[in-house]
Amino acid sequence: MGVAVSLDGDHGRKPSLDALTALVAEDMKAVNALIIARMDSPVALIPQLAGHVVAAGGKRLRPMLTLAAARMCRHSGRRHIGLAACIEFIHTATLLHDDVVDDSDLRRGMASANAVWGNKSSVLVGDFLFSRAFELMVEDGSLKVLAILSKASSTIAEGEVMQLITTNDTDTDETAYLEVIKAKTAHLFAAACRIGAVVADRPGAEEAALKEYGMNLGIAFQLIDDVLDYTAKQATLGKTVGDDFREGKITLPIVLAFRRGDAAEKVFWRRTLEEMDHQAGDLERAITILDKRGVLTETVERARQYGARAIRALDPFPDGSEKAIFAELVGFCTERAF
Amino acid sequence: MGVAVSLDGDHGRKPSLDALTALVAEDMKAVNALIIARMDSPVALIPQLAGHVVAAGGKRLRPMLTLAAARMCRHSGRRHIGLAACIEFIHTATLLHDDVVDDSDLRRGMASANAVWGNKSSVLVGDFLFSRAFELMVEDGSLKVLAILSKASSTIAEGEVMQLITTNDTDTDETAYLEVIKAKTAHLFAAACRIGAVVADRPGAEEAALKEYGMNLGIAFQLIDDVLDYTAKQATLGKTVGDDFREGKITLPIVLAFRRGDAAEKVFWRRTLEEMDHQAGDLERAITILDKRGVLTETVERARQYGARAIRALDPFPDGSEKAIFAELVGFCTERAF
Repeated sequence: MGVAVSLDGDHGRKPSLDALTALVAEDMKAVNALIIARMDSPVALIPQLAGHVVAAGGKRLRPMLTLAAARMCRHSGRRHIGLAACIEFIHTATLLHDDVVDDSDLRRGMASANAVWGNKSSVLVGDFLFSRAFELMVEDGSLKVLAILSKASSTIAEGEVMQLITTNDTDTDETAYLEVIKAKTAHLFAAACRIGAVVADRPGAEEAALKEYGMNLGIAFQLIDDVLDYTAKQATLGKTVGDDFREGKITLPIVLAFRRGDAAEKVFWRRTLEEMDHQAGDLERAITILDKRGVLTETVERARQYGARAIRALDPFPDGSEKAIFAELVGFCTERAF
Repeated sequence: MGVAVSLDGDHGRKPSLDALTALVAEDMKAVNALIIARMDSPVALIPQLAGHVVAAGGKRLRPMLTLAAARMCRHSGRRHIGLAACIEFIHTATLLHDDVVDDSDLRRGMASANAVWGNKSSVLVGDFLFSRAFELMVEDGSLKVLAILSKASSTIAEGEVMQLITTNDTDTDETAYLEVIKAKTAHLFAAACRIGAVVADRPGAEEAALKEYGMNLGIAFQLIDDVLDYTAKQATLGKTVGDDFREGKITLPIVLAFRRGDAAEKVFWRRTLEEMDHQAGDLERAITILDKRGVLTETVERARQYGARAIRALDPFPDGSEKAIFAELVGFCTERAF
């Protein structure tokens, strides 16, 4: 295959997903076909609803991580295909339940499944996809992979429960916030990367390196996601700007702004985020405060630090086109805001 | 151990769970301890909420099936303990999501978890328990068990979606109803029984016999459950009498009564079950019609037929105390209404 990616001449170019997408294009076709085939069920509502979420697409970042990691690890078999599909199934199930928990109407720029089919169907089809993910893992036949992904799944659920608990709680500190995003987001990124090394039967050091890369990339990704909720243009974001604010979610910009806020600002945050008493102009005022307190820039800076850690984690791997693609992905995830 | 159960002298005695409970008492202690240990999480809400459901207890019928089947199959190891816990975790996760989907306020005579902690927590803790079930299976280390239980899980989800689709649809026929209850209830009974033979490494015929027993017992159990929703005393039922009716669920008594109903009855069923237009006295009228049309008795009769099939399925096993207990369990499940 050999997709050439120049490490020179990249300066000044906006990081993109193009090289990654090209690297895994063939494999991703197989993954997409498998996703369609395995979300099928005689119960027609299941492929309808699941197909809606899958068709909305998104970036397919997590399965791409598995595919690219498998390639960097010189995996020559086909196991990464099934496992990448499996990771996307787990992610999709999580999204369906997330949208129910968050009462979201929009997902990836389209009506969310719960907005179209109701919460009940979303809960149950999420359960189906989750079970189907485990069926795919069992077909793969590796107990090691099963251990990694069943642990990732329970950790995601723990993270989601933690997030629910910290919602509306302005006392939430940075440590608690980091615990939440590691569990709900970064852990699956880490597992997705690590599995690339597992299927290729690489030494533990490479497995650990990819896991560390994924964990840090996932944290950076979520930090930027939390910034975008206040700064993005709705058309680009694909969900409603200010969702986190309206739901009273305590993300890092809020954690930092609350601590630095004066008395009036603390009153404002308590009213909007704790008491959920929202008035016209509140989102604009929130953004103005976040800007004034410099916390959006600081959150982005924090994301860049995690991004740098992700890149350093890949030291055990020789330089080459795949490693450059993993580095560019860090750039993409941290710069996509701007 | 050897709990003696006389096959004679049982005539006229009401079938009970006593002999089964005694047979698996020691093992069940270990299962309960494992359930408590493994529903733990640093996220305190998880053991709180899960503990509420687990403490409410219920009959623990499904894990008892695994334990008793393992004993009948002369299993000498400990694997049945972990797998029985795993089956109870899957069942508990399903209950949590069920109560969200059904908006139930009562479960086993206590406030349901969603009534206490809200739907969001119930969805997410259900996800956690489900993932934890898979972690337990992975620790068991048998890909065969993993295949059986991941298939059972996706089948349950399919059954729940089917049930959602047939809700409010008086066109639902008996075939569709049977599909629903096989998938949502009987399949897990079948898996729970079958696993007893799997851990004991018994021949395929015994595995198939136990699976067949569980499937038919599960169908009989659900048929009686659906009768109880109209006939039980609330204190005995542990949930609200008439729940199915108020939710517009199309169970076998309704399927039969709708087909046999005169024009006025059809209008009544359509108003209450399809249009969900409920007035005072409707539940009483529904029960009167079901009684007049003889469909409750007929549903019980149908349950007895499946029960008889369950007992016949155990032919490959030699007569003995365990087999007698499995037979009595059929009696218990089909006679508990009366």
